[in-house]
Amino acid sequence: MPPVNGNDKVLKLGIPKGSLQEATFKLFAKAGWKIREHHRNYFPAINDQDISCSLCRAQEMARYVEAGTFDVGLTGRDWIMEYNSDVHVVSDLVYSKASDRPVRWVLAVKGDSPYKRPEDLTGKKIATELVGFTKRYFEEAGIPVEVEFSWGATEAKVVEGLCDAIVEVTETGTTIKAHGLRIIADLMHSNTQIIANKAAWQDPWKRKKIEQIDMLLKGALCAERLVGLKMNVPQDKVEAVMSLLPALNSPTVAHLYKSDWLSVEIVVEEGVVRDLIPQLCEAGAQGIIEYALNKVI
Amino acid sequence: MPPVNGNDKVLKLGIPKGSLQEATFKLFAKAGWKIREHHRNYFPAINDQDISCSLCRAQEMARYVEAGTFDVGLTGRDWIMEYNSDVHVVSDLVYSKASDRPVRWVLAVKGDSPYKRPEDLTGKKIATELVGFTKRYFEEAGIPVEVEFSWGATEAKVVEGLCDAIVEVTETGTTIKAHGLRIIADLMHSNTQIIANKAAWQDPWKRKKIEQIDMLLKGALCAERLVGLKMNVPQDKVEAVMSLLPALNSPTVAHLYKSDWLSVEIVVEEGVVRDLIPQLCEAGAQGIIEYALNKVI
Amino acid sequence: MPPVNGNDKVLKLGIPKGSLQEATFKLFAKAGWKIREHHRNYFPAINDQDISCSLCRAQEMARYVEAGTFDVGLTGRDWIMEYNSDVHVVSDLVYSKASDRPVRWVLAVKGDSPYKRPEDLTGKKIATELVGFTKRYFEEAGIPVEVEFSWGATEAKVVEGLCDAIVEVTETGTTIKAHGLRIIADLMHSNTQIIANKAAWQDPWKRKKIEQIDMLLKGALCAERLVGLKMNVPQDKVEAVMSLLPALNSPTVAHLYKSDWLSVEIVVEEGVVRDLIPQLCEAGAQGIIEYALNKVI
Amino acid sequence: MPPVNGNDKVLKLGIPKGSLQEATFKLFAKAGWKIREHHRNYFPAINDQDISCSLCRAQEMARYVEAGTFDVGLTGRDWIMEYNSDVHVVSDLVYSKASDRPVRWVLAVKGDSPYKRPEDLTGKKIATELVGFTKRYFEEAGIPVEVEFSWGATEAKVVEGLCDAIVEVTETGTTIKAHGLRIIADLMHSNTQIIANKAAWQDPWKRKKIEQIDMLLKGALCAERLVGLKMNVPQDKVEAVMSLLPALNSPTVAHLYKSDWLSVEIVVEEGVVRDLIPQLCEAGAQGIIEYALNKVI
Amino acid sequence: MPPVNGNDKVLKLGIPKGSLQEATFKLFAKAGWKIREHHRNYFPAINDQDISCSLCRAQEMARYVEAGTFDVGLTGRDWIMEYNSDVHVVSDLVYSKASDRPVRWVLAVKGDSPYKRPEDLTGKKIATELVGFTKRYFEEAGIPVEVEFSWGATEAKVVEGLCDAIVEVTETGTTIKAHGLRIIADLMHSNTQIIANKAAWQDPWKRKKIEQIDMLLKGALCAERLVGLKMNVPQDKVEAVMSLLPALNSPTVAHLYKSDWLSVEIVVEEGVVRDLIPQLCEAGAQGIIEYALNKVI
Amino acid sequence: MPPVNGNDKVLKLGIPKGSLQEATFKLFAKAGWKIREHHRNYFPAINDQDISCSLCRAQEMARYVEAGTFDVGLTGRDWIMEYNSDVHVVSDLVYSKASDRPVRWVLAVKGDSPYKRPEDLTGKKIATELVGFTKRYFEEAGIPVEVEFSWGATEAKVVEGLCDAIVEVTETGTTIKAHGLRIIADLMHSNTQIIANKAAWQDPWKRKKIEQIDMLLKGALCAERLVGLKMNVPQDKVEAVMSLLPALNSPTVAHLYKSDWLSVEIVVEEGVVRDLIPQLCEAGAQGIIEYALNKVI
Repeated sequence: MPPVNGNDKVLKLGIPKGSLQEATFKLFAKAGWKIREHHRNYFPAINDQDISCSLCRAQEMARYVEAGTFDVGLTGRDWIMEYNSDVHVVSDLVYSKASDRPVRWVLAVKGDSPYKRPEDLTGKKIATELVGFTKRYFEEAGIPVEVEFSWGATEAKVVEGLCDAIVEVTETGTTIKAHGLRIIADLMHSNTQIIANKAAWQDPWKRKKIEQIDMLLKGALCAERLVGLKMNVPQDKVEAVMSLLPALNSPTVAHLYKSDWLSVEIVVEEGVVRDLIPQLCEAGAQGIIEYALNKVI
Repeated sequence: MPPVNGNDKVLKLGIPKGSLQEATFKLFAKAGWKIREHHRNYFPAINDQDISCSLCRAQEMARYVEAGTFDVGLTGRDWIMEYNSDVHVVSDLVYSKASDRPVRWVLAVKGDSPYKRPEDLTGKKIATELVGFTKRYFEEAGIPVEVEFSWGATEAKVVEGLCDAIVEVTETGTTIKAHGLRIIADLMHSNTQIIANKAAWQDPWKRKKIEQIDMLLKGALCAERLVGLKMNVPQDKVEAVMSLLPALNSPTVAHLYKSDWLSVEIVVEEGVVRDLIPQLCEAGAQGIIEYALNKVI
Repeated sequence: MPPVNGNDKVLKLGIPKGSLQEATFKLFAKAGWKIREHHRNYFPAINDQDISCSLCRAQEMARYVEAGTFDVGLTGRDWIMEYNSDVHVVSDLVYSKASDRPVRWVLAVKGDSPYKRPEDLTGKKIATELVGFTKRYFEEAGIPVEVEFSWGATEAKVVEGLCDAIVEVTETGTTIKAHGLRIIADLMHSNTQIIANKAAWQDPWKRKKIEQIDMLLKGALCAERLVGLKMNVPQDKVEAVMSLLPALNSPTVAHLYKSDWLSVEIVVEEGVVRDLIPQLCEAGAQGIIEYALNKVI
Repeated sequence: MPPVNGNDKVLKLGIPKGSLQEATFKLFAKAGWKIREHHRNYFPAINDQDISCSLCRAQEMARYVEAGTFDVGLTGRDWIMEYNSDVHVVSDLVYSKASDRPVRWVLAVKGDSPYKRPEDLTGKKIATELVGFTKRYFEEAGIPVEVEFSWGATEAKVVEGLCDAIVEVTETGTTIKAHGLRIIADLMHSNTQIIANKAAWQDPWKRKKIEQIDMLLKGALCAERLVGLKMNVPQDKVEAVMSLLPALNSPTVAHLYKSDWLSVEIVVEEGVVRDLIPQLCEAGAQGIIEYALNKVI
Repeated sequence: MPPVNGNDKVLKLGIPKGSLQEATFKLFAKAGWKIREHHRNYFPAINDQDISCSLCRAQEMARYVEAGTFDVGLTGRDWIMEYNSDVHVVSDLVYSKASDRPVRWVLAVKGDSPYKRPEDLTGKKIATELVGFTKRYFEEAGIPVEVEFSWGATEAKVVEGLCDAIVEVTETGTTIKAHGLRIIADLMHSNTQIIANKAAWQDPWKRKKIEQIDMLLKGALCAERLVGLKMNVPQDKVEAVMSLLPALNSPTVAHLYKSDWLSVEIVVEEGVVRDLIPQLCEAGAQGIIEYALNKVI
Repeated sequence: MPPVNGNDKVLKLGIPKGSLQEATFKLFAKAGWKIREHHRNYFPAINDQDISCSLCRAQEMARYVEAGTFDVGLTGRDWIMEYNSDVHVVSDLVYSKASDRPVRWVLAVKGDSPYKRPEDLTGKKIATELVGFTKRYFEEAGIPVEVEFSWGATEAKVVEGLCDAIVEVTETGTTIKAHGLRIIADLMHSNTQIIANKAAWQDPWKRKKIEQIDMLLKGALCAERLVGLKMNVPQDKVEAVMSLLPALNSPTVAHLYKSDWLSVEIVVEEGVVRDLIPQLCEAGAQGIIEYALNKVI
């Protein structure tokens, strides 16, 4: 039972349980919300009286948001597509730290099998955790196949001869190759999405709260790959320095006291700094400092 | 693909993946077989050319043993009953160390709901991971209910009002109570079982191999709760000492060299030792030593 | 023996040994002093030749500061009150991270006892580690009781019937409830305080040094719950943006170079940021960044 | 409140909380009793309905056993002497594993002080946690001193000049030397003792239970430094082999089947094995094996 | 084989394997380059197509840079001197975090030996890992000695009498004293250096790349001991505040909007902040904040 | 300086420092000697007054045993061969637990190089840590090559083109393959050996002490792969049971008291137990128990 919070309105938020849960808690903390899990309980506390928080398997999130059990939730695009859920997609969240490659669902067969393309699987048996999506994919492609539900260890089923192909999730393909399988098609790429119940999205109070969460989660994610850069520049070199700065965010420039120097401050991608700094020095910037950011909106 | 081992015959053994896996590997090691997992692979190596080993979810084990994908496997009685699988139950293995209470599947409802007995749920919705078993249970009891599959976080579903009751696994009831639920019936107790494919059980070579595994696994489990006890007893007190010893295993008694003392050695439950030793001392035994056992057959 | 440091004057600083010690070392490090403990020694090194540092039980700190063994020390308000020590309280330090609730000393009785208020304990026996404080509390309230010293496991003494009530420290009441006890009064709330010897406080050199430590410890604590926020605002929206900012610290506002935009920078409570940022955006602020702070004075 | 166990009689057992607690739990486990602590609770569970178990500071144990709060308890000889408690000492338990030196309470002074013997401290101030014992010690020696209670960090008090000497516990003297102190007398050696309430010791049921615990704890401790040794010896060399064996336990000797060899089995100190084995080989023993023991009574 | 990167030019960078490796990887990460080690491989990946990265023992780095195997490398000054390598020293990098004392190579003898100065070792045997350097040192001093290579445990060799003195590396002298040895001379102080192959340093593209690495590594190291300080100052107190600021970096000063206050921002050594802040407050600065820096160029 | 122990004779024992050190300490502990390392000191304590113990790099052990610095030491056969040391090899110790494959020194070349056999390397450069052995190997084979000392990262040198081949140690070849190298010859297999100084081996007291160490180390190693098996057998089935038992150790057989059963006890390889037990049961053995062993001599 969600905690009573004395408000007329409460936003019901679903957090994916399991592998993404800790990263999600950290992201919310950076955005400004502390979520604390209770031992053996599916209803964590959140330090915002306007929100009631529930844990839910990523696979079931979209169904519960569609049904209005939750007003808003975070889950993978794959599970939204699996159930073809009728929800409003608020935005994409790319948790980019773990790896740079997207999660993808691939069609894989035994390494020594003759199958080269999805069409070659006509009449064959395919095992997958994503039965709904896989069935629709092959129906839309006009390829008749038998799709069987599998709860994991799916790679082993092709090896054992229990099916002819699998549709399985992978980042790098390592597990698939380790079983001697061969990928013959990428069926879908997936990332985390914020999804809202359609009625909740029409409610002005709920929509504003959802947009607040969305803005701050994205601000926190954004800050992970940006840094602040500040430098002093003599007035006659400002144009040269300015021309080097990425167009992304316009710099904050201010006159320095009793001098013809200017202070220039800008937010840039961490990845370009190592090339930018030597150029800035050459163009006349001095006293360059780089500092970390918590949020960038 | 299982490793080629040059034998005509190979016993296909299924090991349950997941929470029981490590305990199972340890038990096999004590019994005399070393199983080594390969990184990201479902086919661990075993140091016995007569066996090929596969990992498999406990939920799917019984179906695969029934189908002959595996000749023999270990899994919970609950999952065998869920699928009503047609397999030969070789024996029960009670991994007694973690806790002394059996795993049980219970029927639970909201703490403040009016339901007191299974009958009170007529026409209601029940969420469970054990759909097949639950349906049969209520059908046999003549109580019409709607049974819905749930992948976990099942307790939260009663709390959220998504169902009226759940059938869920528990050892101590802690998680169930932590959500404010109330248990109204125990539907089934479960423990690990060794199950064999019926054809494999008829094959003399395979049956002998299965019986070897069964004998040694039980010998290793058995040794965990037994100890060896050895003492010297003067001949005139042997009858008194003997009368104290549990009937379980007959003691090994031998004459000592050039004396009227006897050496008495016996295997007993560790739990009775603390009461037995003072009695043995009183009855005249001396030089009592206790030692640990690896296997007891 | 404190390390010789070649100065005429040395400030003798007492650090509480035990549960607060590590947090205190970290706080001093953020404030600018590195304290390094020597193995099995009560006199840690500090990188400031003007200070000599000693470890001391929190319980004994106030007595030693009163006696002039230390010029300044950190300890709990509870232990200062226990000994009714004649020291100068420089300031309160709330180490707020671990929990938001204050430490409090409560009067607790058996759950099933008839006692409801302190008065009900007339003539009864009370066990506590805080004998001096508890005696004075009941004397001042005109309630005659017997107070007995207890070294810990105090809850068990009520349970065992060795006393009728206890005065014990707690944050959340969990341990007290776990023994079936009931809290009937809050006798005192406590937090860490900086205390100075009265003569040392009159010595100008020592007082200046104590004030430096006080200022920087508070600056470091303060920075833990504040963040810096910086944004660009068009001149015609400055009033609107300004009106949203908390009055706490006046913002730093500067003209941007060759434009009618202003740079606005402010330090705010981390807890208000999630509500403030959407409002600032709506009011016309752009390029909002949030950054962390080491110290705020 | 101790758990209700349905017996007429219950033995109230006190276990020392703190540094010895884990070692004590392990020792009881080896002796045959599993003790399980509850989170934040002073009454651990024990798998024997005849015993109720409480945790208690080692310092307070003797007082509680004397008062009958506990029937039997384990604590240090030092704390029994501190309170001059009127209890029955059942036996000594030497937990010999951690170190081979006994715990001792020593009289220590500053390294550069003139004090050489206890007599030199006439009229001086001594700080100690063991006030009662220290006062009696100096009274009995006819040396008038002032004894002050200290809660720890006692070494620092001599260094700071707050007292002239300390009476402090030590194993190796390392902490004392690390503060530049010098030991001038050993006042008492201490080890763990099993103590019983005098009335409980007169109660036949309680005494029998206490003796059972005593026997099995000692049996488990004993087994830690003993091993079993077994060998085969030709009849004509039995006398030579026998003469090498320690007199401690008489060996178990048995005739081997259809041969003039004998099997000789003995329990010996682990420390002598490395010298004994080569001698046994030389004397004609063969097939020597060494095995570990759980208990030796 | 270094990774193919499609460029005409690649800078071959050597990273010291072993104790410095992790710190070096972290420093490069702060500077802007992520280096990822492959399991059991000496060629880590770096996220810059212009660089190919190799691991190499610090001892062999200078030889490989001299030979052109690497264009640039990091290693200790001691190993460069050992081989008298003909390389261009780009700059010194002081990894100051672990300790504040420099690494030094000292000449040490047995504590009770008669040797007091290097000259006393005429005709004696000296063991060291730094054979080349030690030979040259004594040759230049005109002291004939025998120098023997030692692979470690060098201190033990003096103790065992296998040599008369050792030349060994130390930070604090602790290991040397722990063996009862006495230091009689400091022969060399060492720190990490960036060294370049002489031909590579003449190649404009390579030199520019080396200078980029050098600038950013130093910028990252520098930021570890500096912090940013920002404050508001009324115009009539600016001179007083300015006079307190270290000359190192000129402050960034800007007029505040519609007021006679100025914003003053400066980068200072973390070590001076604790003294500077009270002075700044006294001089009239307000709203002082301190923040951390990633890089300072 | 080795600890003074008051004996006329002391055996100087060298223990290999580094990767084998902990395993060696454990093996000695099982054999009956406790070795305790002192912090930052090369002379660990040993609980035997007849032995003085030193740590020494495995590479230098043989030279020191040859020179008489140590009377006896443990090191790898490879390092003995490297220096062609004139020592007495007492015995081989196979620390078999970590892996079943022997350590071997192999000749490896780049994967795409033309070299197939040692002969193909005529006139080429070979890098290795084992310069002495490698030179002798190629000299004896009549193949002229240039051998260069390498301190590690040897694989990288072939990859970088700094040499044509390497002689490197490997267990499984994984690191070698991970660098794309190919093994073209196995030059030597190595294991730990106990070696003695030749004069010490002639001294009767020292030889006896060395033989004691050798006997007990081997006894402890042996016990790791053996177990004790005990069973009861009816007299008429003794022959059948006996015929199944391995010839290795003759069984201990004893008559049971007042019965026609015999007790049979034997030490066997752990690896055969799983096959032996079912056969023993079939042949009529009952009450079979398996127990672990500490030593088998």
